[in-house]
Amino acid sequence: MRQAGRYLSEYREVRKNTGTFLDLCYSPDQAAEVTLQPINRFGFDAAIIFSDILVVPDALGQQVSFKEGIGPVLTPIANSGDIKELRFDGLRDFLEPVYSALKIVRAELPIDTALIGFAGAPWTIATYMVEGGTSREFAKTKTWAFSEPDQFSQLIEILISAITDHLIAQVEAGADALQIFDSWAGMLPDTAFEKWSLDPISRIVAGVKCKCPNVPIIVFPRLAGHRYLKVAAINGVSAVSLDQTISLNWVRETLQPGTIVQGNLDPIFLLAGGDAMKAEAERILNILSKKPFVFNLGHGVLPPTPPDHVADLREFVSSWLRDNR
Amino acid sequence: MRQAGRYLSEYREVRKNTGTFLDLCYSPDQAAEVTLQPINRFGFDAAIIFSDILVVPDALGQQVSFKEGIGPVLTPIANSGDIKELRFDGLRDFLEPVYSALKIVRAELPIDTALIGFAGAPWTIATYMVEGGTSREFAKTKTWAFSEPDQFSQLIEILISAITDHLIAQVEAGADALQIFDSWAGMLPDTAFEKWSLDPISRIVAGVKCKCPNVPIIVFPRLAGHRYLKVAAINGVSAVSLDQTISLNWVRETLQPGTIVQGNLDPIFLLAGGDAMKAEAERILNILSKKPFVFNLGHGVLPPTPPDHVADLREFVSSWLRDNR
Repeated sequence: MRQAGRYLSEYREVRKNTGTFLDLCYSPDQAAEVTLQPINRFGFDAAIIFSDILVVPDALGQQVSFKEGIGPVLTPIANSGDIKELRFDGLRDFLEPVYSALKIVRAELPIDTALIGFAGAPWTIATYMVEGGTSREFAKTKTWAFSEPDQFSQLIEILISAITDHLIAQVEAGADALQIFDSWAGMLPDTAFEKWSLDPISRIVAGVKCKCPNVPIIVFPRLAGHRYLKVAAINGVSAVSLDQTISLNWVRETLQPGTIVQGNLDPIFLLAGGDAMKAEAERILNILSKKPFVFNLGHGVLPPTPPDHVADLREFVSSWLRDNR
Repeated sequence: MRQAGRYLSEYREVRKNTGTFLDLCYSPDQAAEVTLQPINRFGFDAAIIFSDILVVPDALGQQVSFKEGIGPVLTPIANSGDIKELRFDGLRDFLEPVYSALKIVRAELPIDTALIGFAGAPWTIATYMVEGGTSREFAKTKTWAFSEPDQFSQLIEILISAITDHLIAQVEAGADALQIFDSWAGMLPDTAFEKWSLDPISRIVAGVKCKCPNVPIIVFPRLAGHRYLKVAAINGVSAVSLDQTISLNWVRETLQPGTIVQGNLDPIFLLAGGDAMKAEAERILNILSKKPFVFNLGHGVLPPTPPDHVADLREFVSSWLRDNR
């Protein structure tokens, strides 16, 4: 999950002086600085590069911006003519600032702190590209995908190529591990899930592994429920991130025997802090920490979260693991 | 799922002449008329009373309105003082128009067409009462529930009583079956799910069954994933409604042997229509129709849906069932 953000005063300071949100993503020194802020403050075991999943459509030539209080706004694409206007050439040049930021962070990070690169999955990125922003129903994207699958798959194919390339470039720039976020995977019924979430991710993982055989790849198929099993079974996937709604006993019994899992504290507990937070963290640790497990949040840190709560949680988890190993 | 709505011209006609959305819910003749519209047009096997889950907080004295293009707007409640101001007395008088509508519909419905009454579950209604409307993160409600569970449970207790009473009154007015919608059940992590979704629903079901032992009760724990099993195991629950994201093979193998299931065509297919819709409906029928099963949508009909698609689907499902029994 994104570690830097508005809950940190040092982030707000950098953000204030660096234009728009995307300007920050494309300013290597500043993106590196905010990536390192939570590591410096809390000493996590891994850093995730400060960027956004929507740099990919931006690099493909779609108009992307971020409006305060609204979220991402894109000029929606609606037909195969719009798809044809996406330009795949020059993707690496466009995204060079992201790779520069990774190089800076890797050089400054402690040697035993991992650096994670990431991208959105094709389905999730496509929803933003077609809806023109966030959505509740995903009516335009799903209608297109379900009614004209051949045309919609042209968009997915472009995204598979672009995302694969973007992930490989991140490894070449110093990322030790990769994470693929399919935030809206769970919104697809079974057959569509396999076609538009599972299959594109499998192909991206295969493409990345071909060039970078040793990089661990974590997939986050948010709200996928039972279908987490299929994602974990993708050849080349090292771990899955758990959203905050999945049943942990099911994870322990069904998913964890074959897969490393990562998650899943509801960020609301981090906002609440105190005993409620610690009790929930302990419940997660009790259920999942007997097998390979990475403690993490189930979703990003909420802006009003007091940073002290994050420090408390980090300390609580570390000492619990010391006492229970 | 609500069957009447803006996708029907005859609904828009009534709506235009009946003030606000809540005015329509509280006008027995008009509410009965729009309840019957989809039955008259499509000949479904069951009708669901035209109403809303937020009539309960409205009856408890919280300010509720519906804003075009936004959704429900409530004056949010934030502390135990606000909870104390909710007035439980007079609930049945306030909701009398809903019961009158049920009586009218029951008298006009064909004898073999079932009439379904419904209510929201306490957790879902509480999210609207605390957030003041719809929400993405449910930050206020979850923070309250997780940090001050004793105080938050005062609100849940009031809702358990009010909802139980509202459901019993609907049976007394002619409802043949009841449905409880916990639309935001899936947003709770395991322990909180048991405390704030499962337990309150169990108590409501027990309370209703005490007065109306023969009424079938359907529960819709939306996005609850594996936890559907726990809901289906509640004493007195006859069936569960499946959301459109659940894995149907899991349902057939794990859930369906012990429970009647209902669902789960993604309403986007109804919007798309044609072969894509029929293929998806057939997939659902193939997997689920060998055991007790009610064909339904996974969520409400989307406003731009052409009514012809609904007629096509109804015809397709009926003839498929005729040919495959």
